Amino acid sequence: MAITVSPLQAEANRLRLELQTLQAENAAEPIEIGNYLLARLEQLKVTKMFGVPGDFNLGFLDLVEDYPTIDWVGNCNELNAAYAADGYARVKEHSIGVVLTTFGVGELSAMNGIAGAFSEMVPVLHLVGVPSTVQQGTKAVLHHTLSDGRFDAYLKAAENITISQGLVTDKETAASTIDRVLTDCITKARPVYLTLPTNMVFEKISSERLKIPLSPAWPLNDPDIESFVVEEIMKLATTAQDDMVILVDACVIRHGVRDEVNDLIEKTGFPVYAAPMGKTAVSETYERYGGIYVGSVSHPDVKEKIESAKLILSIGSVKSDFNTANFSNRSIPSRTVELHSDHTKVQHAVFPAIGMKQLLPRLTARLEACSAAARKIPIPDPRAVVPKEDNEIITHTWIWPRMGNFFKPKDVIVAETGTSYFGILDIPLPEKSILLSQMLWGSIGWTVGSTLGAAFAVQETGLNRTILFIGDGSLQLTVQELSVMLRHGLKPIIFVINNGGYEIERCIRGRHRKYNDISNWKWTGLLGVFGDPSLSQSYTVHTKTELSVLLDSASFAEAGKIQLVEIMMQTHDAPRALKLQSSA
Amino acid sequence: MAITVSPLQAEANRLRLELQTLQAENAAEPIEIGNYLLARLEQLKVTKMFGVPGDFNLGFLDLVEDYPTIDWVGNCNELNAAYAADGYARVKEHSIGVVLTTFGVGELSAMNGIAGAFSEMVPVLHLVGVPSTVQQGTKAVLHHTLSDGRFDAYLKAAENITISQGLVTDKETAASTIDRVLTDCITKARPVYLTLPTNMVFEKISSERLKIPLSPAWPLNDPDIESFVVEEIMKLATTAQDDMVILVDACVIRHGVRDEVNDLIEKTGFPVYAAPMGKTAVSETYERYGGIYVGSVSHPDVKEKIESAKLILSIGSVKSDFNTANFSNRSIPSRTVELHSDHTKVQHAVFPAIGMKQLLPRLTARLEACSAAARKIPIPDPRAVVPKEDNEIITHTWIWPRMGNFFKPKDVIVAETGTSYFGILDIPLPEKSILLSQMLWGSIGWTVGSTLGAAFAVQETGLNRTILFIGDGSLQLTVQELSVMLRHGLKPIIFVINNGGYEIERCIRGRHRKYNDISNWKWTGLLGVFGDPSLSQSYTVHTKTELSVLLDSASFAEAGKIQLVEIMMQTHDAPRALKLQSSA
Repeated sequence: MAITVSPLQAEANRLRLELQTLQAENAAEPIEIGNYLLARLEQLKVTKMFGVPGDFNLGFLDLVEDYPTIDWVGNCNELNAAYAADGYARVKEHSIGVVLTTFGVGELSAMNGIAGAFSEMVPVLHLVGVPSTVQQGTKAVLHHTLSDGRFDAYLKAAENITISQGLVTDKETAASTIDRVLTDCITKARPVYLTLPTNMVFEKISSERLKIPLSPAWPLNDPDIESFVVEEIMKLATTAQDDMVILVDACVIRHGVRDEVNDLIEKTGFPVYAAPMGKTAVSETYERYGGIYVGSVSHPDVKEKIESAKLILSIGSVKSDFNTANFSNRSIPSRTVELHSDHTKVQHAVFPAIGMKQLLPRLTARLEACSAAARKIPIPDPRAVVPKEDNEIITHTWIWPRMGNFFKPKDVIVAETGTSYFGILDIPLPEKSILLSQMLWGSIGWTVGSTLGAAFAVQETGLNRTILFIGDGSLQLTVQELSVMLRHGLKPIIFVINNGGYEIERCIRGRHRKYNDISNWKWTGLLGVFGDPSLSQSYTVHTKTELSVLLDSASFAEAGKIQLVEIMMQTHDAPRALKLQSSA
Repeated sequence: MAITVSPLQAEANRLRLELQTLQAENAAEPIEIGNYLLARLEQLKVTKMFGVPGDFNLGFLDLVEDYPTIDWVGNCNELNAAYAADGYARVKEHSIGVVLTTFGVGELSAMNGIAGAFSEMVPVLHLVGVPSTVQQGTKAVLHHTLSDGRFDAYLKAAENITISQGLVTDKETAASTIDRVLTDCITKARPVYLTLPTNMVFEKISSERLKIPLSPAWPLNDPDIESFVVEEIMKLATTAQDDMVILVDACVIRHGVRDEVNDLIEKTGFPVYAAPMGKTAVSETYERYGGIYVGSVSHPDVKEKIESAKLILSIGSVKSDFNTANFSNRSIPSRTVELHSDHTKVQHAVFPAIGMKQLLPRLTARLEACSAAARKIPIPDPRAVVPKEDNEIITHTWIWPRMGNFFKPKDVIVAETGTSYFGILDIPLPEKSILLSQMLWGSIGWTVGSTLGAAFAVQETGLNRTILFIGDGSLQLTVQELSVMLRHGLKPIIFVINNGGYEIERCIRGRHRKYNDISNWKWTGLLGVFGDPSLSQSYTVHTKTELSVLLDSASFAEAGKIQLVEIMMQTHDAPRALKLQSSA
């Protein structure tokens, strides 16, 4: 998720930036504050800006619309826009997502989406067009205010769900404020909040600072402590007689160490497993990949392999309830080494400010020697087999392995926190495919916006299809964003699981309660209402055969237009992992 | 909006409540905390609860579903649910709106809706199902958390947009906490925030306190100061030689003094005008009603009458930008008396804690003597005339007076902050009709949710039809809530102004910018997708004649099923008031 430079290079860049600014305040061409910000976003490889126009951001939108390399994506509402920025950032790993809203009404609508990016560590800039500094000073009862003169109320709310905040209030500090929040965003992989008053957008400032791109301010590991940590880990590896497994999780993706981890697993050959949130952090077709470990909900053979290993090297773990089957993972501290973005934990000892970005290559160099032994450690076969069932009902036990055969390399698969996510957890995905889910934050409806953002990123990054799995209950929350996909010519495949309500909640409580029911929409009519019917295709499938025939159809599989497939499934059917999780 | 008791009666009730609780802690039947809360809501005449189920509120939802007098309205998403609670409270004036969400994901999605209720002074309870007090104590990384152990982050965010907060944390204080936030809600006519942990819902407490209903804690005017204020006002009235006008605004409705104001205007006969946010606070068919005063945007005859009056009695005013045409109202302090819920202002002198609820009857008694003179003061004729235009284009100058002929007594008319609201401003509405709008907060899309809530309240209060006016841009934000109307058999008439985008923004900036365009939906296909097509009817009208024929059709006008009318209008056409307002 972070920028591809080394920590040392990043630090040098930042120092040079400060120096150069001091040296040559007046040398460069002046630039509007709004365009300064856009230039910074362009440097961060941002090509899409999500959001909704509102009267306090219209001036800035003029600049966006005229900016050659950044496209405005007008969303239907702000929550969906925030979700889209999140999905975009997840797929476009060395960039950030940007959502633009307006003061009060717009920004508060986006809060859940921004909080989700915080929870799940996704770098998103929430940019808010606000009243002019003059208007704010008068404390007047403007529209979009709380009618009591408090112009800082929304900032105070945002402070709880963003890692850094910046208010552009004058020409002198505008550039450094913008640079500070963007640097925090790419360093910490969390959302940041920036307000742009209407009277600041066109003010001109020096463009000097733009000559040096922003770099993340990762911790520079102390070499002595880092060496000490490496030795401590090697001692444990020796004691374990190379009986070690590697467990990867979400932060491998979020904190930009995919390459370092791949280097480690390929050079050492230790068995590698993934936690649910780390699914697709490493290739699931890699020969030493053994499957998903999620505590008591794991497949028994995976569970046994992990929990009996003498040493677990855990990389980028996120210890949330769903990611660990209610904290049932038994990777007890005395035989675990944890690598994180900003600290390392060896057994019980915590080493602050020793980050994995630098530590991983050193570990790989030392552990390479174990390769021969490591490659002999057996792993389970993670492949999923389509079960033979003697009926035509589309069941969860059948559909997910069947979908496994439909996926192709480089597909981006988005799975709603519900039956979809728990179903797909058990299916290994193809090479270079990416799974997007929001297991920790778990906001239903998130996948619709994030599919929109992901589909844009897919276009830019040479990935394959964008495929969404969502339940009928979740889709109702954010459905209008399908029309934005249509408007921009995006062509995701959308599988809608129609089981008449909120099935994940039925698993938790209220199995026969009315509050978990929803109204039954005519799903196949939706896309035709949201755009030109010739640009989309919708289907309903009731049986295994119907679904299989559709999946096998070449024209369907090539995804030449946006497609929606309503899959009729049974109320009270749920995937294995969800049933186990909710009973745990 | 507040409960119909006198301030003194209210104060006595609250004292009795505290006393009785101390006297008889153990006398009454025990009751679950969840049911205690529901009983309080029932006493406040709440019959509908809006929201979305989520795993931390499912236990409480069992109680709601089983509660005989309160119905659960499952909304499509939380923002729409908050809007619905707001609309419900606005129409059901002596009750409150209630929205139930779940921890984090749900409550943050509702924030914009709750903040709007704060800004516009609408009593809404935001009830949030949260993790058990035990789980919160562990600071575990639960789903729906920010993954860093902060369980108070959402409360801190809510503190900025609610007037009072309560956390149910134990049996001992649960009842008093619930009573405190509900009392604040009905006293201050602003939203309040209450969290209900999963392990508290079924805990049993004494039901003793329920024997005394909650009452608003309005200020009890000091009799001596109140007398002094009355004399000060009478001196001004005498000096003005009865050349006085009355100007009513939103707080007449919000703070429950409609009856007192009607008594005043009927007994005295002074000319009465309304600010935009106070439209329908007094009957627009009343013989002494002169129209809407909105500073420089007013009709010239209204402007002249108000601004030349020797004394202006302003009741419940809200001095927001849109409500005053950018503060252009000239009611200069030296000839204005302002009555508010919690203070009075006579010329430049402020009298804190002298509230209008008690002051108004005393003023009426004194001013009654001016009646003969007052009734001679001329007023403009506020009636609107349908203009003759020699074309079939549906224009803003034509459509609003035409709609004026369509409205009936007791209709509830909901107008989106956009061309709809500014259009309807110029049209007097029938007797006992209610106009709902959100001019101060101005969140586009709000009317859809609020129409849902209003339509429920209309059913209960013997009002007539619910009629929504909304632009295509605004409807896209919250469109799914139409399906909830269908599901519950509500029958609003929905007029969709199709002008290809955000017209109100085009008036402000970006007249020819792409960012103000939206995708064109097949609006007449929507209701058929959201529910059984036989339960709804949709129309598109392109010409004046087509629209007139439809409005004159008896079957259309009786609103026997939910109806949607797409009105084709021209991009860049806007109502008079909006053009003036945006240029101001």
